[in-house]
Amino acid sequence: MIKINAERLEQRLKALAQIGKDPEGGWTRPSFTPQYKAAAELVSAWMREAGMSVRFDAAGNLIGRLEGTDPSLPPAAMGSHIDTVKNGGMFDGTVGTLGAVEVVSSLHDAGITPIRPVEILVFAEEEGSRFGAGLLGSKAVAGVADSTFIFEHTGFDGRPIADTYREYGFDPARFGEARRQKGDYHCYFELHIEQSHVLDSTGDKLGVIDGIAGYIWLNAVIRGQASHAGATPMAFRRDTLIPASMIIQDAERIAKGVSDTTVATVGKMEITPNMINVVPGEVKMSFDIRDIYMENVEKAADLISQRFYEICRERKVEGEIHESIRSVGTLLPRRLTDVVEEAVRQTGAPYRRMMSGAAHDAQMMARITDTAMIFVPSIGGISHDPREKTDYADIALGAQALCNALLSQIGA
Amino acid sequence: MIKINAERLEQRLKALAQIGKDPEGGWTRPSFTPQYKAAAELVSAWMREAGMSVRFDAAGNLIGRLEGTDPSLPPAAMGSHIDTVKNGGMFDGTVGTLGAVEVVSSLHDAGITPIRPVEILVFAEEEGSRFGAGLLGSKAVAGVADSTFIFEHTGFDGRPIADTYREYGFDPARFGEARRQKGDYHCYFELHIEQSHVLDSTGDKLGVIDGIAGYIWLNAVIRGQASHAGATPMAFRRDTLIPASMIIQDAERIAKGVSDTTVATVGKMEITPNMINVVPGEVKMSFDIRDIYMENVEKAADLISQRFYEICRERKVEGEIHESIRSVGTLLPRRLTDVVEEAVRQTGAPYRRMMSGAAHDAQMMARITDTAMIFVPSIGGISHDPREKTDYADIALGAQALCNALLSQIGA
Repeated sequence: MIKINAERLEQRLKALAQIGKDPEGGWTRPSFTPQYKAAAELVSAWMREAGMSVRFDAAGNLIGRLEGTDPSLPPAAMGSHIDTVKNGGMFDGTVGTLGAVEVVSSLHDAGITPIRPVEILVFAEEEGSRFGAGLLGSKAVAGVADSTFIFEHTGFDGRPIADTYREYGFDPARFGEARRQKGDYHCYFELHIEQSHVLDSTGDKLGVIDGIAGYIWLNAVIRGQASHAGATPMAFRRDTLIPASMIIQDAERIAKGVSDTTVATVGKMEITPNMINVVPGEVKMSFDIRDIYMENVEKAADLISQRFYEICRERKVEGEIHESIRSVGTLLPRRLTDVVEEAVRQTGAPYRRMMSGAAHDAQMMARITDTAMIFVPSIGGISHDPREKTDYADIALGAQALCNALLSQIGA
Repeated sequence: MIKINAERLEQRLKALAQIGKDPEGGWTRPSFTPQYKAAAELVSAWMREAGMSVRFDAAGNLIGRLEGTDPSLPPAAMGSHIDTVKNGGMFDGTVGTLGAVEVVSSLHDAGITPIRPVEILVFAEEEGSRFGAGLLGSKAVAGVADSTFIFEHTGFDGRPIADTYREYGFDPARFGEARRQKGDYHCYFELHIEQSHVLDSTGDKLGVIDGIAGYIWLNAVIRGQASHAGATPMAFRRDTLIPASMIIQDAERIAKGVSDTTVATVGKMEITPNMINVVPGEVKMSFDIRDIYMENVEKAADLISQRFYEICRERKVEGEIHESIRSVGTLLPRRLTDVVEEAVRQTGAPYRRMMSGAAHDAQMMARITDTAMIFVPSIGGISHDPREKTDYADIALGAQALCNALLSQIGA
């Protein structure tokens, strides 16, 4: 067993956090910006220090490679990202990226050369904050996004994504060459902050991820009759906010009833006219329904839709509800999640198996290789926010577990 | 009995509607604008045609006076307003104003001179759409707003209301001279469109108003914890939209339980951050609670506030609710509402006694003289909207009832 260098990892996280600070708060470091380039150069330097060769693939992913004694073996991979949302935190992505670099640095310090090569993948545009195309780098690797995509889709600046690739020295026509096939990697590990409350609430220090939730988003509209809040007796109303409030409660009840892992959220509502003295004539609302098992997501979505129409009939308002977006859940392979659980157990820290509700590059990598994830706690569950925070001691535990897991796969 | 001229009334309503049409739809004719001035001049011309003398009082109210054979008697008054909300309809206020002018025109046609003088009051700024100071003209007459008010309060242009008065040729320091005392008027009648669904739904053509609702507005905020809609299991949430939806339903149940006339509305909500994939961390919401009996309003407000705190405790979120505005209800005197009921009965049209949920100049006039109101139906209950509509036949019925009521009071 190799012990990672917790102090170095903390120092590198703090050093990386010197790049991309936003005067309005937190960090703003979208991919393919000067801040992003500077951050990638710093990470590259640490990779080289750890004995890795460094290159960019055709999709702009930064890839470090530690050669193995048998270079013909498919590499074991680790990775994450270093882009941020606007006014984001300093731990999202960077913990997994610098955690992976720390693992290789520790191998290097220990003078160990693995049999199997090791690669670190720093994926471009994970957050989607430059082009609105989340997971773009890992999608390229998994073959989910090709060069057609970047020619046909525009970024937030209104220009084709391909133009920005060209400006940063990439040939957008070759974007698809980033694609890797099944068998090209032996496995992929990703360490990440949880971005929610579970570990922070339970006191567990590490999470072993069983899968990444899939989701269905539903959009609904309820149309009744706007009317004067003083002049319209209760019996004469076709208030739309009452049926909306009924389905909000039923969505919670339905999610709890489908399974322990199913979640349903009404996060967004638009009330028209939204005036204190007018009975709401129209409500638009969204439902976000997730689970690692898509059959649970579908069951909850169906039950919510059925109940929605029942309530609208009951309250004599018009209602429409339909699916807007669907993302299929990713169940991670037991072979590798058990490896990670053992690696976590070796740290001695309390842990739990859990699912990831948020999306990660790991779900793309899972399409082409065995994949596993480790979570460390987010204090207060806060993420995508300048206050995002994880104890450095917990980050060290996560990096140690990542190191243990990697070691079990590389014949070192 | 005198029969009013329904055709003339319709023509005048249509002529007045030529002034202040808004290219974006409906009518925009706030008080103290060129459109408003033109409308006031047209109404003045029709008053003079009907044998009235015309003047503006110190608060900018247009007052027509038909002299009685005993000028020493306190006049019987009728009135309403000709200002509109932004993109409003063509019947709100104008029906009562031109209905009153039609009554005097009909007296004039019939060659009748009353013993008691008759005044028509066209109140400025009823809608509050110029200064945000609804009922300003009638408040001046009732002594509720004085010149201090217009010096200290600004309009939507950010300048003191007094400045606009000065520009329109009024001395703002003399604003308070518009005030009338108890005994200055014998009575006040106001015809108005209902602005809601009751008459349109029941098929009644006229409403005899028992009182104008008072109200309490409550503002509430619920604070929980915003969190990722995918990453936060149901058991770990402090969702604020669920307790908000519970109190929305309870507010309806409470209003129905307090009395048949009590209404409670949640018309406005602000959800933070209001994103499809984030559990709402904060909800702000408003409650509008009305009744002609303030004890019912207070009872409903107390029950809603109690229940609000119970729900917040139950759902482990922080809640605050407090009264923001209170307007005392006006119970109209039986002496005059019975006079109006008899006047309405004489038309032969189906009618009902009902309350007014909306505010009217009549509630200010009720502070200084016996006051009564007559409602005509609003098709579909729509008002403050370009689609606002009342059948001209129903307007004629309303004006006839107004005429009958006035005749009973002026010794003609």
